[in-house]
Amino acid sequence: MLRLLSVNFRGLADHKTPLNLNFSTSSGMAKSKFEYVRNFELDDTCLRNCYIVVRLDGRNFHKFSEQHNFMKPNDNRALGLMSRSARSVMEELEDITIAYGQSDEFSFVFKRSTTWFKRRASKLMTHVTSQFSSSFVYYWKEYFGEQPLLYPPSFDGRVVLYPSNRNLRDYLSWRQADCHINNLYNTTFWTLVQKGGLTKIQAEERLSGTQAADKNEILFSEFSINYNDESPMHKKGTTLIWEKVNETTTKWIKKQDEGETEMNVTRIRKQVTSHSSDIIGDQFWEEHPDILESDQC
Amino acid sequence: MLRLLSVNFRGLADHKTPLNLNFSTSSGMAKSKFEYVRNFELDDTCLRNCYIVVRLDGRNFHKFSEQHNFMKPNDNRALGLMSRSARSVMEELEDITIAYGQSDEFSFVFKRSTTWFKRRASKLMTHVTSQFSSSFVYYWKEYFGEQPLLYPPSFDGRVVLYPSNRNLRDYLSWRQADCHINNLYNTTFWTLVQKGGLTKIQAEERLSGTQAADKNEILFSEFSINYNDESPMHKKGTTLIWEKVNETTTKWIKKQDEGETEMNVTRIRKQVTSHSSDIIGDQFWEEHPDILESDQC
Amino acid sequence: MLRLLSVNFRGLADHKTPLNLNFSTSSGMAKSKFEYVRNFELDDTCLRNCYIVVRLDGRNFHKFSEQHNFMKPNDNRALGLMSRSARSVMEELEDITIAYGQSDEFSFVFKRSTTWFKRRASKLMTHVTSQFSSSFVYYWKEYFGEQPLLYPPSFDGRVVLYPSNRNLRDYLSWRQADCHINNLYNTTFWTLVQKGGLTKIQAEERLSGTQAADKNEILFSEFSINYNDESPMHKKGTTLIWEKVNETTTKWIKKQDEGETEMNVTRIRKQVTSHSSDIIGDQFWEEHPDILESDQC
Amino acid sequence: MLRLLSVNFRGLADHKTPLNLNFSTSSGMAKSKFEYVRNFELDDTCLRNCYIVVRLDGRNFHKFSEQHNFMKPNDNRALGLMSRSARSVMEELEDITIAYGQSDEFSFVFKRSTTWFKRRASKLMTHVTSQFSSSFVYYWKEYFGEQPLLYPPSFDGRVVLYPSNRNLRDYLSWRQADCHINNLYNTTFWTLVQKGGLTKIQAEERLSGTQAADKNEILFSEFSINYNDESPMHKKGTTLIWEKVNETTTKWIKKQDEGETEMNVTRIRKQVTSHSSDIIGDQFWEEHPDILESDQC
Repeated sequence: MLRLLSVNFRGLADHKTPLNLNFSTSSGMAKSKFEYVRNFELDDTCLRNCYIVVRLDGRNFHKFSEQHNFMKPNDNRALGLMSRSARSVMEELEDITIAYGQSDEFSFVFKRSTTWFKRRASKLMTHVTSQFSSSFVYYWKEYFGEQPLLYPPSFDGRVVLYPSNRNLRDYLSWRQADCHINNLYNTTFWTLVQKGGLTKIQAEERLSGTQAADKNEILFSEFSINYNDESPMHKKGTTLIWEKVNETTTKWIKKQDEGETEMNVTRIRKQVTSHSSDIIGDQFWEEHPDILESDQC
Repeated sequence: MLRLLSVNFRGLADHKTPLNLNFSTSSGMAKSKFEYVRNFELDDTCLRNCYIVVRLDGRNFHKFSEQHNFMKPNDNRALGLMSRSARSVMEELEDITIAYGQSDEFSFVFKRSTTWFKRRASKLMTHVTSQFSSSFVYYWKEYFGEQPLLYPPSFDGRVVLYPSNRNLRDYLSWRQADCHINNLYNTTFWTLVQKGGLTKIQAEERLSGTQAADKNEILFSEFSINYNDESPMHKKGTTLIWEKVNETTTKWIKKQDEGETEMNVTRIRKQVTSHSSDIIGDQFWEEHPDILESDQC
Repeated sequence: MLRLLSVNFRGLADHKTPLNLNFSTSSGMAKSKFEYVRNFELDDTCLRNCYIVVRLDGRNFHKFSEQHNFMKPNDNRALGLMSRSARSVMEELEDITIAYGQSDEFSFVFKRSTTWFKRRASKLMTHVTSQFSSSFVYYWKEYFGEQPLLYPPSFDGRVVLYPSNRNLRDYLSWRQADCHINNLYNTTFWTLVQKGGLTKIQAEERLSGTQAADKNEILFSEFSINYNDESPMHKKGTTLIWEKVNETTTKWIKKQDEGETEMNVTRIRKQVTSHSSDIIGDQFWEEHPDILESDQC
Repeated sequence: MLRLLSVNFRGLADHKTPLNLNFSTSSGMAKSKFEYVRNFELDDTCLRNCYIVVRLDGRNFHKFSEQHNFMKPNDNRALGLMSRSARSVMEELEDITIAYGQSDEFSFVFKRSTTWFKRRASKLMTHVTSQFSSSFVYYWKEYFGEQPLLYPPSFDGRVVLYPSNRNLRDYLSWRQADCHINNLYNTTFWTLVQKGGLTKIQAEERLSGTQAADKNEILFSEFSINYNDESPMHKKGTTLIWEKVNETTTKWIKKQDEGETEMNVTRIRKQVTSHSSDIIGDQFWEEHPDILESDQC
């Protein structure tokens, strides 16, 4: 039997692969011959006591949105799917305390004391990106119904560290200010096109050099649109946080001596909730004091 | 009109959000107040003239494979889906010259001279991970048919640099040696369980401390299985490369004076091809000399 | 003339160096042919809004101290020279607000908002190390007099970032606790050897497993030494900070109509001052509130 | 006795330092309370199989050279001291195979397989910088005699990695081309000033826009200077390498039966040698094949 086996090994050798030589005595030895390559991997641990922000951006989403007939200036199906995917990320990955999204981007904030994946930047950003991307395809149907997804979309990700609460809040303010600026522009632009009958080029020229007040004025005086009345989600983007909710369920309880009886059981459960709040001012943060950790640590 | 508008702005101010203050004069100013946070992003450019390898690994795929009833020791549907997703990555992202996969992992090699995404590690690894993850869900049905995907899966990714052809080949050899070792173990383990009637614990004990030759012997003498005859894809994993193929199409060409005539038109096209070759020895590399770039650069 | 010159150039060419070929038409061209190598330099900018600590340690200073006959357990000449060199670093390099030294190590703290050298870690640590090392040799004579420096000593350096005031203070506390532990050990060890007549090995065995209280007890009961009365510099190390001092100079001022008159002119000047204070407790920080910047930034 | 000791401890407590509280039971405990700050240090290991180049540059050496009356365009005392300091670095630190210097800069090349200081960038660059800086002061007198060093000078350092022999040679070529360009310019500039009687501004204007050939022509036709005959060290800079030399010493050997007899003993010893060679062309590298390691590794 051993004889036959050795023939087999010789046969393998005839294929001019060194594989059998490596493994003929001990597979462990062969592995260790190549295993030195592991040491080329470099450490990318994130500095302790900093908030770790992972931001995702859609790749070529301008084209993607046209190919999938997104509504202009905002497509609620797409925004809903983005938020659903972000919720999936928060539910699967530990230690994300707040996420903020607008347009084709989403930011995830890991608490500053997280030790998830030993704070390795590559692990954190790829897991977030992966979970978000697979969720985007997985939940597509829930938001787009029978309209097919034409190809698998892609998102890029990055990691940024913020050492203080002020820095983190300013980061989120930066993204929300960006949302406001873009949405005011896009709302006015598409109103000029869709209701005002301008071409895209004419609308662009009309808006060139205008300030926020000018755009508000155009919307109000020409189209009787009060920008303040626009959808909060479009104006402010979407903020996801963990909140405690009372969950009441009805159960049949067996009692001693007697039969069963119906009872309401209330449990406190943490769940991801969605908000279209202003996160630049203090109110949101005062109402949700658990999101930030103290700077005194 | 302006008067009314200013009322609106005051209304906004009443909500105690500083947003309107920021934007009342110029949206640009407000953005720049927060924009300093951009400077917290750190550069992660990969060293020039090194191969950039992105490796993905499935997260909790042991559990995932059980929940989706994967065949043991190898599920061809899952391996096919992994390769299909990897092909999607290669077709979408530039400058990947070779990819190697086995089990729930896949490695992608960017050519050493790539300037894709300015060689930024975070962009490279997240784009690969994202494209792979969304493709995995997108193409699930092609491989698993009516068996549903129960939840969106996740993959992590990492970047490793290799300065020389020897280092890169040793990396790929390391992964293929790992494939061999695991597959020989798994094949023997599951044969002992499925055909030999051992429990998993008994099979584990039986294999404890055995060498490659011992496992070959068990398979051959007890089950008449010649490991060499096992599926190359299971033994060697899957290697994806770009190859030129002749693509012949029949076209109807309009000729002067005459009518149309049928002609065969042959074009050379690059496409991703799949191989279950040995990539430890020299033969594969001699047959595909374009994959590696010279060390003399 | 040009003819002769071209002969010269041919002569240069005969030396088989490509240099002249590169430069014969334009020196700029030649430089740019090689200049691509600049792009291999990687960015190492320190994260914003963190304290940047550079710590130096003497290389092989155990041997160095024996070769230069340092007093045991503390050599005031050496400690003085260390502090003098550290002062030289603070006076030459901007934005260091506090430095702490003990034994053969010194830590320098750059303020968290520093933009010195664009916060590049390599520049910061090499400049500190270089200035310290050259100063150590330069000022040797001031502390060691006629005893010669036998060879140029070396220090290594490293950069560590601290995001909060708490972290920074804990870093400095860690170093001062290290000073205390080592000095108490060394004081007891050398007292046992120098006054108790033990060999070094006997002293080491005697101290093995002892707590701080045990060492205090040995010093007090056997040698009538109250450790509290030991030199503060030895117990606490040396802290350097910037302080405002009134500098009064006498000047001869020319007055109109009259002759000259003597006047005292007082100016406020910042200078580096040295302290042997406890920096673990709050008092030092309350007395010097300018060292730390607010965490609220 | 213990009683008295506890009084001492209380005394310490009265100073409002928490130090005694920390240490009253166990010094180990106190240290570990702060020791978490160690984990803020980030890894900066250099990628394996790459040449590690540390380059030093003098800080404010324009001013330094004027304050110390350096000869123009080249001061041989300063260049000699730079080389002496570089030799000190090579002799003290392992695994530097070649160093190249010109003007106020010096580059040190660690072999690609070095494991010195675990390839940690910060250790490598600070040790080189420190040893160079302390040597510069230490050996000053050997080169400048009675002319005093006015203050301790400073050098900055950086680390750059090169994955291939071609890259490394191109790096060194880049520095030597820089030397050539600067020296030709400076030689012509100072000749115009010192021999031609031009002011510095006039000389600068004269040279504005000129090519290498123009400068050669000015030197030759106006001042009868053949640039080729200038000092090789000024034209090519200084290259330091390790070379084997035969060291013959005369010893008196005791012979059996007879008396002593004189013998020549020759040993092979490695020592740092200095060259003013062209290192852009191939000849130097062919003559010293041990400097580079194979790209095939």
